[in-house]
Amino acid sequence: MKRIITLITDFGLNDHYTGAMKGVIYSINPDAKIVDITHNIPRQDVFRGAFILRNAYCFFPKGTIHVVVVDPGVGSKRRSITVKADQNLFVGPDNGLFSFIYKESKSVKINEIANPKFFLPETSNTFHGRDIFAPVAAHLSLGVSIGELGNEVLDQVKLEIVDPEVYGDEIIGGVIYEDSFGNLITNIPARMIKSGSRICIDKWVIERVSKSYSEVQRGELLAIVGSSGHLEFSVNQGRASDLIRSKSSRVYIRRI
Amino acid sequence: MKRIITLITDFGLNDHYTGAMKGVIYSINPDAKIVDITHNIPRQDVFRGAFILRNAYCFFPKGTIHVVVVDPGVGSKRRSITVKADQNLFVGPDNGLFSFIYKESKSVKINEIANPKFFLPETSNTFHGRDIFAPVAAHLSLGVSIGELGNEVLDQVKLEIVDPEVYGDEIIGGVIYEDSFGNLITNIPARMIKSGSRICIDKWVIERVSKSYSEVQRGELLAIVGSSGHLEFSVNQGRASDLIRSKSSRVYIRRI
Amino acid sequence: MKRIITLITDFGLNDHYTGAMKGVIYSINPDAKIVDITHNIPRQDVFRGAFILRNAYCFFPKGTIHVVVVDPGVGSKRRSITVKADQNLFVGPDNGLFSFIYKESKSVKINEIANPKFFLPETSNTFHGRDIFAPVAAHLSLGVSIGELGNEVLDQVKLEIVDPEVYGDEIIGGVIYEDSFGNLITNIPARMIKSGSRICIDKWVIERVSKSYSEVQRGELLAIVGSSGHLEFSVNQGRASDLIRSKSSRVYIRRI
Repeated sequence: MKRIITLITDFGLNDHYTGAMKGVIYSINPDAKIVDITHNIPRQDVFRGAFILRNAYCFFPKGTIHVVVVDPGVGSKRRSITVKADQNLFVGPDNGLFSFIYKESKSVKINEIANPKFFLPETSNTFHGRDIFAPVAAHLSLGVSIGELGNEVLDQVKLEIVDPEVYGDEIIGGVIYEDSFGNLITNIPARMIKSGSRICIDKWVIERVSKSYSEVQRGELLAIVGSSGHLEFSVNQGRASDLIRSKSSRVYIRRI
Repeated sequence: MKRIITLITDFGLNDHYTGAMKGVIYSINPDAKIVDITHNIPRQDVFRGAFILRNAYCFFPKGTIHVVVVDPGVGSKRRSITVKADQNLFVGPDNGLFSFIYKESKSVKINEIANPKFFLPETSNTFHGRDIFAPVAAHLSLGVSIGELGNEVLDQVKLEIVDPEVYGDEIIGGVIYEDSFGNLITNIPARMIKSGSRICIDKWVIERVSKSYSEVQRGELLAIVGSSGHLEFSVNQGRASDLIRSKSSRVYIRRI
Repeated sequence: MKRIITLITDFGLNDHYTGAMKGVIYSINPDAKIVDITHNIPRQDVFRGAFILRNAYCFFPKGTIHVVVVDPGVGSKRRSITVKADQNLFVGPDNGLFSFIYKESKSVKINEIANPKFFLPETSNTFHGRDIFAPVAAHLSLGVSIGELGNEVLDQVKLEIVDPEVYGDEIIGGVIYEDSFGNLITNIPARMIKSGSRICIDKWVIERVSKSYSEVQRGELLAIVGSSGHLEFSVNQGRASDLIRSKSSRVYIRRI
C-alpha cells in the first residue's frame, strides 16, 4: 500500500542509522513512501522535535504516518506509543514528543506499542528506531490498527507548553524556537496580536508588526507573523539571533 | 501522474521547512517523485544556486520540474516565475536563479506565477517555498500549463555570467565555484582549451592539463577538465582551495 | 522495474553531485527507488564507508542494489566492480569498500565493470559516480546481469579487517568506529562476550556489560552490545568519545 511515512530523528546524517530504518520499512512495505523531515534535531532535544513535528505534519496528506525518534530513554522503562489524531498516525517514545499533537488535535487516541509481533525478530536495547518504531510504522502503513499494538494509554507524558499570558491590553510571551536562519519564533499566535501593537524583547522596542522582511532596511530587526503562524523576530537579510542574545527572552506586546 | 520534482534551497536540513514543502507537494500530487538536489546553498547565494542547478538539471529526464528557492526578496515585490526551457520546467523567484538556463537552452518561455488558484489557501509573506512554489510545482506535475499561472515575462532578471576573454592564444578566465572537495571550478569550458597549454593562477604555473588526479603526486596541484565540463583546479587527494587562496583569482591560459 | 538503489558516498550534501547521480538513475529507470544511506563519509575514508555499508545493507530487501562511492583513485587504473553476494548487488570502485560483504556473505561473485554500453555516453575522469556507477546500477535494476558488465574478478582488493584475539579467558580487541553520538564500536561480536566479564579500555575498568543505557547514572561510561551486534562503549546521555580519548585504544575483556 502506498502510504507516506515521515521521519524526524536526532540520528544525524553521518552514520548508517537512518538508512537502516529505511531498509526495515521497505522490507515490510515496499510501496511505502519515506520522507525525511529532519534527522538533525539536536541530540535528545525532545521539545525541538515536538515543535518541528507540529510545524510539518499538518502539510502532509491525511493518513500519513509520522515517526519521531528523539529518545534519551531508549532501553529504559519509558513506553513506546502510537497516536491516532485526526486521521494521522504518530509513532515514537512516550516522552512528550507528541505534546503539540495532543493539544491541537480534535480527537486523540493513544496505544502502547507492546506486541512484539510487529517488531524486528531481534530487538536491541539501543536502537528502537530500527527495531521497533520503523517496523511498527511499516505495519501501520499496511493497515494494522493501533489497537493491535497494545493497550490504550491514558496517562501519556506531556511537555509543558507555556501559553502567553494576557493582562488586558498586554501580552507576555516568550521565544520557543530559533531556526537556522536565526529567526526567533515566539509562542504568541497571530490571532492574539492586535493592530497598533508595540513589541518589546531584550533591549529592543519594535513599533509595529511588519508584513514582510523588505519593509525594513537590510540588517534591521523586525517583528512579523511567520510561516508557523506565530510572532517571530527576524532581520532583513540577517539573523535576529545575532541581535537578540538570550533565547529565553520574554516578549511583551502592548497596544499603543 | 508520476513526475520528478527536484528541490534546491538554502533552507538547510535542521528545520521543518523542506519537510513542509514535501508534504504540500504530496498532498496535491501523491504520485510525484521528489528528489533533493541540495538544501545547503549558502544563505541567499543566488549565483551558487544557479550554478548547482545548471550542473544537475541536465541529468534528469525531460519533463522534470526543478524548484529552486534561494530567495532573499521573499515577500517583497520581486516576481515569482516559472520557466519552460527545452521541455524542462523551473519554478522559483525571479532573481537570476535561472540565468544559466536562459543562456544554455534552445527555447525559453517564462511566465509569472500570479494565479492564487494554484497556491495554498493561505500564503505567508516569509515562506513562498511552501505556500507558492511547492503547490505550483505540484500542479504543473499534474499537467497545468505555465500559461495558466500568469502573464508571459520578457524582462526577467539575469545574473551577470562572465565569459572568459580570448586574446589570440591567450585566455583570461576566473574561478566561479568552489566545491566541498576544495576543487575550484573556472568559467573556462573544455572546448576552449588547446593542447600544449600552460595555465597560471595565483602564484602557480601549471604546465599541462591532466587527464586524471593520479597523474600528479599526492598533494600536488593540477588542472583538469572536471565533471561540469569546465577547467578545474584540484589536488590529488587534497584540496586545491588550500593552495589557491583567493577564490576570485584570475586564470590565464597560454599556448606554449 | 521497481528496485531499490541505495547510495553511500563521500560527496557531502552541498554540491550537485548526488543530485546528478539521482538524475542519471531515474533517466534510465524511472521506477527505481533511490535511498540515501549517507553522503557524509569523511573524504576518502574507505574503511568507514565499508563499515557503514556492512551495518545498513542487511536491513534492505533482497535484490537491493547498493552503490558505494568513496573513491580516492578515481581516474587511475583502479578497477570498477560489481558484486553479487547472497542475492544483493553492490557497485563501486575495487578499493576494499566491499570487504565486509566478502567476509560475511555465503556466496560472492565479482565482475569488473568494463562494458561502456552501460555508462553515460561521455565519461569524465573525475566523477565515475555519475558517469559509470549510477548508470550501471540503473541498468542492473532493469535486469542486466553482472556478467554483461565485464570479466569475473578473482583478485579483488580487501581491507585488512582485524579480528579480536582470544587467549583462553582473555579477549583483546579494538575500537573500529565512532558514531555521531560519540559511541565507540569495537570489533568484538556479542557471541564472544561471556557473562561475568570485566572490560578494560584506556584508563577505564568496567565491571560488567550493561543491558541498557539507563542501568548507569547520567554521564557514566558503560559497555553494551550495541545495534551493530558488537561491544560498544557509551555514556548515558553523553559521549563515550569524550571520556575515552584514543580511538585506537585496545580493549581487554577478561572473565572474572
